Amino acid sequence: MPSNTIGELFKLTTFGESHGPGLGGVIDGCPSRIPLQEEDIQTELDKRRPGKNKSSTPRQETDQVQLLSGIFEGQTTGTSIGFFIPNNNPQPKDYSQLKDIYRPGHADYTYEAKYGIRDYRGGGRSSGRETVSRVVGGAVAQKFLSCHNIQAFAYTKEISGIQAELIEPKNAQKYPYFAPDPSVVQLWDRKIDKTKKKGDSVGGTVEIQVHGVPPGLGEPVFDKLDAKLAYALMGVGAIKSVEVGSGLEAAELPGSQHNDPITPDGFKQNNAGGVMGGISSGQPIIVRATVKPIPSIYIEQQTITKDGEETSLQIQGRHDVCAIPRIVPVLKAMVNLVIADMWLLQSARQSG
Amino acid sequence: MPSNTIGELFKLTTFGESHGPGLGGVIDGCPSRIPLQEEDIQTELDKRRPGKNKSSTPRQETDQVQLLSGIFEGQTTGTSIGFFIPNNNPQPKDYSQLKDIYRPGHADYTYEAKYGIRDYRGGGRSSGRETVSRVVGGAVAQKFLSCHNIQAFAYTKEISGIQAELIEPKNAQKYPYFAPDPSVVQLWDRKIDKTKKKGDSVGGTVEIQVHGVPPGLGEPVFDKLDAKLAYALMGVGAIKSVEVGSGLEAAELPGSQHNDPITPDGFKQNNAGGVMGGISSGQPIIVRATVKPIPSIYIEQQTITKDGEETSLQIQGRHDVCAIPRIVPVLKAMVNLVIADMWLLQSARQSG
Amino acid sequence: MPSNTIGELFKLTTFGESHGPGLGGVIDGCPSRIPLQEEDIQTELDKRRPGKNKSSTPRQETDQVQLLSGIFEGQTTGTSIGFFIPNNNPQPKDYSQLKDIYRPGHADYTYEAKYGIRDYRGGGRSSGRETVSRVVGGAVAQKFLSCHNIQAFAYTKEISGIQAELIEPKNAQKYPYFAPDPSVVQLWDRKIDKTKKKGDSVGGTVEIQVHGVPPGLGEPVFDKLDAKLAYALMGVGAIKSVEVGSGLEAAELPGSQHNDPITPDGFKQNNAGGVMGGISSGQPIIVRATVKPIPSIYIEQQTITKDGEETSLQIQGRHDVCAIPRIVPVLKAMVNLVIADMWLLQSARQSG
Amino acid sequence: MPSNTIGELFKLTTFGESHGPGLGGVIDGCPSRIPLQEEDIQTELDKRRPGKNKSSTPRQETDQVQLLSGIFEGQTTGTSIGFFIPNNNPQPKDYSQLKDIYRPGHADYTYEAKYGIRDYRGGGRSSGRETVSRVVGGAVAQKFLSCHNIQAFAYTKEISGIQAELIEPKNAQKYPYFAPDPSVVQLWDRKIDKTKKKGDSVGGTVEIQVHGVPPGLGEPVFDKLDAKLAYALMGVGAIKSVEVGSGLEAAELPGSQHNDPITPDGFKQNNAGGVMGGISSGQPIIVRATVKPIPSIYIEQQTITKDGEETSLQIQGRHDVCAIPRIVPVLKAMVNLVIADMWLLQSARQSG
Repeated sequence: MPSNTIGELFKLTTFGESHGPGLGGVIDGCPSRIPLQEEDIQTELDKRRPGKNKSSTPRQETDQVQLLSGIFEGQTTGTSIGFFIPNNNPQPKDYSQLKDIYRPGHADYTYEAKYGIRDYRGGGRSSGRETVSRVVGGAVAQKFLSCHNIQAFAYTKEISGIQAELIEPKNAQKYPYFAPDPSVVQLWDRKIDKTKKKGDSVGGTVEIQVHGVPPGLGEPVFDKLDAKLAYALMGVGAIKSVEVGSGLEAAELPGSQHNDPITPDGFKQNNAGGVMGGISSGQPIIVRATVKPIPSIYIEQQTITKDGEETSLQIQGRHDVCAIPRIVPVLKAMVNLVIADMWLLQSARQSG
Repeated sequence: MPSNTIGELFKLTTFGESHGPGLGGVIDGCPSRIPLQEEDIQTELDKRRPGKNKSSTPRQETDQVQLLSGIFEGQTTGTSIGFFIPNNNPQPKDYSQLKDIYRPGHADYTYEAKYGIRDYRGGGRSSGRETVSRVVGGAVAQKFLSCHNIQAFAYTKEISGIQAELIEPKNAQKYPYFAPDPSVVQLWDRKIDKTKKKGDSVGGTVEIQVHGVPPGLGEPVFDKLDAKLAYALMGVGAIKSVEVGSGLEAAELPGSQHNDPITPDGFKQNNAGGVMGGISSGQPIIVRATVKPIPSIYIEQQTITKDGEETSLQIQGRHDVCAIPRIVPVLKAMVNLVIADMWLLQSARQSG
Repeated sequence: MPSNTIGELFKLTTFGESHGPGLGGVIDGCPSRIPLQEEDIQTELDKRRPGKNKSSTPRQETDQVQLLSGIFEGQTTGTSIGFFIPNNNPQPKDYSQLKDIYRPGHADYTYEAKYGIRDYRGGGRSSGRETVSRVVGGAVAQKFLSCHNIQAFAYTKEISGIQAELIEPKNAQKYPYFAPDPSVVQLWDRKIDKTKKKGDSVGGTVEIQVHGVPPGLGEPVFDKLDAKLAYALMGVGAIKSVEVGSGLEAAELPGSQHNDPITPDGFKQNNAGGVMGGISSGQPIIVRATVKPIPSIYIEQQTITKDGEETSLQIQGRHDVCAIPRIVPVLKAMVNLVIADMWLLQSARQSG
Repeated sequence: MPSNTIGELFKLTTFGESHGPGLGGVIDGCPSRIPLQEEDIQTELDKRRPGKNKSSTPRQETDQVQLLSGIFEGQTTGTSIGFFIPNNNPQPKDYSQLKDIYRPGHADYTYEAKYGIRDYRGGGRSSGRETVSRVVGGAVAQKFLSCHNIQAFAYTKEISGIQAELIEPKNAQKYPYFAPDPSVVQLWDRKIDKTKKKGDSVGGTVEIQVHGVPPGLGEPVFDKLDAKLAYALMGVGAIKSVEVGSGLEAAELPGSQHNDPITPDGFKQNNAGGVMGGISSGQPIIVRATVKPIPSIYIEQQTITKDGEETSLQIQGRHDVCAIPRIVPVLKAMVNLVIADMWLLQSARQSG
């Protein structure tokens, strides 16, 4: 049940449902005297906002964060940081049709099975909206990491089979879909348009690089840096796979090609993805996550009612066609949370 | 630093190095009155033993487990279960050449960076030998789960690009490589032989299915069942990716195909891999892990010494050509540990 | 740093400062389908409110709790319960004199030493006001426990050396100071009056009994029930000792008197305080905590400035003369949190 | 169920029963490059050995520790340290009478209630013998703390109402009972002799001081340093109360006397016991624990059988008359474990 908390030393605990009063959480363990303002967080939250490109819904979600504690005169005090993001667009009537029906690809059935009760309004706790609290936690982690010159870059690598070719991580903030290569944007736009017309949805792949991570982060044997990253990323709603470095390719390369040769000037390649034996090597951390297609589609689907009777469902309302790009800042946030946590763990050890 | 423990309620804590007195650990939280004998564990350990097929080294590792506590008159007592596996094949001279050199693809460099000291004999704590303790923990979890009719099947899906076609999980115990399809064994043998001749190594893919898992396991939002599985599997030395259900394919399927339709008789397909919203659905759990090629190869490699000077390395001694099949029981153990832990967490909740 | 969370399965995480926007927290792990309303919590919060007897300040703290998540149609959903209590009486000017001075008996010096920064307004995070969040968590735990017929009674046993004679736990709600014996109230009133006139403060002893706890709660060897209770109670600001059952008396009794004889009708006495070997025995749990005198007094005190210079301090403003009775519901809350947590842990185990 | 582990960053996990193959555990999180040898630990274990004064049994328990991992060339490597202490004096026949009977003052009844099965041989896991593993963990913590000039002193303050007058902590190692004042030894001897003749037992009080603790250790609000100490000490079998600094006296002192005045040269007294607001102040940490009389007495006692029938019990075999002095190194070990853990937590924070 310790389910709504992530992290050992840099901890985020969250709460909130899609259609309740709001979402929020507590960040515990952020070291003191880190400069922090609501704007630092709002900037990240705004990246998750819908309506900025073709794949997302025109819903108005302003997502204004309120910091409730842990900051004094513009700096963290070392005490826990409470925060809240009011819901300002609850429209419960939109969801009444879902009270007695399980949406395919959603968590309706499993929440009912687990808890015996379910807030069916917009998915309740299982709504993608839950991720705003992750972005807040990640933004604070990012602020902390920036004091140590660690920086994460997240970008879309693929939408529905269409890959970005040229990867320039630092440019991805500028382009729609957080594309690392502007030339792919038009292709993605076209794919999204076509999908939208069909009432269908698509998935894709997000990659995150972290630069500036010093060697030594990660806690073998179980809490390896890559294990922690896999946990953090797979814990985001729509993710179906996590790769580190070479990832799936590792199954096909011989050892002589997969091993990264070491030279006095550093490693010659980075199949390791910056992690060896679960510990950071000083190379960029590289992870990828596969995002499944949005389960809410306008096409009629076969399902059952709460009583187990056959029925069909045609979802109404506004929905994103692809979780990308809105999921990109969420995944970056998760990576920042893990790196901050591993940083603190390692610094405890080193000071010994 | 809480690195050598996995699990919240069903916990495994391990210790031990490749060339010290032995390896062992503590299993904490196994419910009382579960029938348990050393044989139950030994059976699983024997599956990890080398020398049973072409891909593994002829080293003699008997891996005899000793149970040291927590069992009385053939049953668990609910107290912690200590165990030990003596090392009986230490040959420290084999490794003296590695004292001042970092092996590519191994954790030598990062352990030195993290701890400032390194037991270089056979990789010390970072040796694959560490996984014997995982197998012991997993065997106890398996025994507990079998009381609830939950059963995990692990098998090799691919070696170096060569896929098993027909997947019959329950047969995999019988065939070399834990192949789920006997027809692929000869192809794999040939690939392994060729690789061995070159002095190179290969990787592959392992899949695990868990049958009998009731709906309701998994703890959203961070401790989702799939997140915990990803953590547990990625924490095994050679793993570079973890997939759940559709995995990488999810990026290419439209929602209309990816969503698993629900019928009065159950789900019509299992792209979810048995997990929706982080909670088990009652379908089989399906996870896959990519195993990188063994980093110890006989081909000369470029690396550096501890002092940062360029050098080359040609590894001696006996080494596996592929971590498969020895890693298969290890990955199954990790899955069993997670399921047992999530089972207990859910049962705490339900009794409320 | 995982400092602002208590509990393993029934978890409370809190935040908030005396003079920030408010205080709050997250309750995680409360089983689903427990009836819960804001009134259930407000009743407990109101017991902590000042101004109800001679020992406490006439400040207006309405402490209105807002439940922000985890409840649907009057029942818990099993997801995390966020809550917030706005501060409505911040008067920052009252505290400006304390910016550069360390108050004796307070945490000013140690917070500065630990964090290098300090929210000096009313003690910031170290203020007794922090305990409102504990009361909220405890109220939810109490609601859960009441479904299992477990009930905690907290009462004042002593103020400044004056003991209550007749202990009737169930009556304590009715009398000032949560006195278990109305005849002592007048004596305590007189003591408090006299102390107030001197500008001084006093402490006392609070006892908590828990009835209805089934045998089997508590997790040896480290997480014994009494160990968890000691941790939870000692973690409340003003507490200097925790006793279980016979407590300090145990040092003077011979074994032949201390051992509780067992009969077919139960134990003949309860020196154990309901806990044997760290596990509940089915007898009432009995714990006591010593409350130190309020450190804020009107008498001049010797101290130093932030720069280490000698100075004297005469505290202004309104302050309680004794932390009793306001601390009584706080201590009860801590006990309820521990019992709920241990209840869930035991139920996980039993279902095995 | 995470019951057999203590600590967040400096963790000890233990296992073992009184009459199984032995006891042991895993120490996880000890920083690397701390000089450590078996002798460092054996010295502490030997202090817990029986037969060194009148209060303890003449049983032969050699308690030889074996270090199994985590050490290389005389230094810790930062990996987990496994250890084992074989039982060499099992005499199962001594205990057969206890199979179906619950000993008053022991955990027989509650273990049976909790687990439904009980290793009745010598108390199994609930035996005082369990504490050898604590001493090993504490000895490693002590070694680590000594690198930072932190030193704990533990001594007996009282046996059965007879107090030591003159407290010279550093001398206590030299005298029987770890007496801080040699003049009390004769009185204690006499008390023990008298008690032994009656076949009865006695308790007492142990005090621990820790010198050299820097300001800043402890993690408010729940994981206060004093809360963690209370948890660690109350978790030792025979303990019925824990006090910090003024302890029980705090209930009777007015604030004007209880507050420790601060001067440019430090605090003028130490009622705080070195902890303010849950954080160390730089003064010596002072804690006390009340030890109950040994429950095994030769006097006939009233009890019941497993089937609930009335019976009487006259315990046979050899038993200590008082848990003091053998419990003294155990309590010191617990304090060292807590301080080491809090030290690492604070150093993680500071490096931020």
